[in-house]
Amino acid sequence: MNMNVHTLHEVVEISPEKQRVLVIDRKGDKRFWQDYDQLLIATGAKPSRPPLEGIDAANVYDVNNLVNGTKLKRALEKDRPRSAVIVGGGYIGIEMAEALHLRGMKVSLVQRSNQLMPSIDPDMAELLSHALVQQGLDVFLEETLLGFELKGDKASGVISDKQEICADIVILGLGVIPNSELAQRAHIALGPKNSIKVDNRQQTDTKNIWAAGDCAQAFDLVSRRPVHVPLGTIANRQGRVAGMNIGGKEALFPGIVGTAITKFMDTECGRTGLTERQLNELDYQYVSATVKGNTLPRYYPGSAPITVKVLAEMGSGRLLGVQIVGGQGSAKRIDTAAMALHAGFTLEDMLYLDLSYAPPFSGVWDPIVIAARIALKKL
Amino acid sequence: MNMNVHTLHEVVEISPEKQRVLVIDRKGDKRFWQDYDQLLIATGAKPSRPPLEGIDAANVYDVNNLVNGTKLKRALEKDRPRSAVIVGGGYIGIEMAEALHLRGMKVSLVQRSNQLMPSIDPDMAELLSHALVQQGLDVFLEETLLGFELKGDKASGVISDKQEICADIVILGLGVIPNSELAQRAHIALGPKNSIKVDNRQQTDTKNIWAAGDCAQAFDLVSRRPVHVPLGTIANRQGRVAGMNIGGKEALFPGIVGTAITKFMDTECGRTGLTERQLNELDYQYVSATVKGNTLPRYYPGSAPITVKVLAEMGSGRLLGVQIVGGQGSAKRIDTAAMALHAGFTLEDMLYLDLSYAPPFSGVWDPIVIAARIALKKL
Repeated sequence: MNMNVHTLHEVVEISPEKQRVLVIDRKGDKRFWQDYDQLLIATGAKPSRPPLEGIDAANVYDVNNLVNGTKLKRALEKDRPRSAVIVGGGYIGIEMAEALHLRGMKVSLVQRSNQLMPSIDPDMAELLSHALVQQGLDVFLEETLLGFELKGDKASGVISDKQEICADIVILGLGVIPNSELAQRAHIALGPKNSIKVDNRQQTDTKNIWAAGDCAQAFDLVSRRPVHVPLGTIANRQGRVAGMNIGGKEALFPGIVGTAITKFMDTECGRTGLTERQLNELDYQYVSATVKGNTLPRYYPGSAPITVKVLAEMGSGRLLGVQIVGGQGSAKRIDTAAMALHAGFTLEDMLYLDLSYAPPFSGVWDPIVIAARIALKKL
Repeated sequence: MNMNVHTLHEVVEISPEKQRVLVIDRKGDKRFWQDYDQLLIATGAKPSRPPLEGIDAANVYDVNNLVNGTKLKRALEKDRPRSAVIVGGGYIGIEMAEALHLRGMKVSLVQRSNQLMPSIDPDMAELLSHALVQQGLDVFLEETLLGFELKGDKASGVISDKQEICADIVILGLGVIPNSELAQRAHIALGPKNSIKVDNRQQTDTKNIWAAGDCAQAFDLVSRRPVHVPLGTIANRQGRVAGMNIGGKEALFPGIVGTAITKFMDTECGRTGLTERQLNELDYQYVSATVKGNTLPRYYPGSAPITVKVLAEMGSGRLLGVQIVGGQGSAKRIDTAAMALHAGFTLEDMLYLDLSYAPPFSGVWDPIVIAARIALKKL
């Protein structure tokens, strides 16, 4: 294959019939058609930005890519802002809260729904919320961003439906939207949340056109449905599968189980599978068990609390989801649950797992196993 | 059920025909027969002690139970010994090496075989050995304990087939032997290494007699063979299963996959499944791949090296074993591999696992997955 790399060029139109794309040279404003044998759409996602006056102010930041991130970092170093409002309490919001708190800034977090981290259940999110409040952050739940206080070309704070919060900078963490307009205009089929519909080879419904990453859908192995989960892990896996297929090697992406992990200071948070909210939306009958334990035997230095919630299908006992919130060494244990979901394990299958034990690492019975044991009694 | 608790009593004979045991009162030296409906043998294991002159010296320590451990700890605090020789380089040897090194003692470790930690392969054990040497410990491989230097009622060092090593105390970590003589004398069937033979309910071959823990065999789910693996995790699981069955509830212990974990200072070590040595003994045809990576993205603070070795069956690609040696946050990842073994996964099944990723926790591709990918090419 020949390789032409066009930087600062943008594809503005796809013509699947003629197998070519219309390219703009963003420097010289030239336009030209480029033929393709195979086309990969890897346009990612863009931050959700409500059309509010002031949202384009210089000190209102998205943090969805390296350019944005670097811009923010430079501003933090140069302007030394002392306070920030973060709008949105998902992964980006929580991680930015940590980063700014560590810089000694006064951080307020505004979240529209009644919990942080909507990808876990409210009871688990409460534990995370507690960690932010304990560190002196202000967490405002059930508050919707209505606009910005402006002072010249800068925002001096945000206006919610409940209050005004002054701050030197504003961070937006309102989630992302697939960059799928180009595909949509070329009549390529879309899936959930306007992500590009793909099969397990990452092929779209249109001949010789592929999609991978945050712009594409993924297949959820637990609910057996297409979903849109814009995470780096999935993007990497999809990119690899698409690349192999385009390059002539067969590769299949079986799908995801919805594993994600984050932390705020010493409080870690992991999730995999479906939450109660998702289970209710999908009309599952399920049982749930939550266990509070310790990461290490209580006598061992460094032991921290860990809370594990297990969800399983009523009747069959099939594991449907696990959530973990706890101290250092908690959240990565979500991988054990992710593996159980990949394997299609029931609660019964979880009871006597041969997981590693030594006092510096864990107790003899993993809290996931204990939670499975308790949930099993409710089937 | 009535409960009589006899402490300081010892069963010295089992009569399965008459369903009774002969008990000695170790205080008063009385003997009496006690009837049973169900009998559980949970006699554990005893440290291997070669019959060498001086092995009973006051400063030669086993560390196989709480009494021994407390005795050693008190001696360390009272006598403040400055040097120790540890005989044996398995879990106990390595963990004692850490404990004594942390107390500022000069520690030498003598190991009969040509590697530390015979439960992992030599190439991986070498990484662990390196960690000990780097911390200033003396590691003597391929040296056999022949005896002790004696000074009055104390050992002043050990004599190997190659040298004499002076030390204030000696720690024995030569492995354990199932306490199964009682069962053997009652003609209860034994399994590997004279452990008591049990089925998946923990029942012995003899009516109403059960066994669990370090005295009993376990079933290895990878090799599909009975094994003797005296670890706390297995003992706990077997005890639970035996107890439930004796108490009238049905419980099955499916078996183990051979997961274990330990550490020396910042170097962690995890293993599950079969090693190359075991695979060769069992005549498996297998492929192997070893990957050196980092626990976290290289740019993230706290990232440490991690080496992962994956073994899989030639042809089928069935995962057979995984070993990990690396820095902080390495070894507990062995649970992912343990789950894969429980699920009977092939290398192919491992390629796109949805494992958790965020920079404070891991890279986008887990080294286990990368190693599986490389091993897959060798099938």
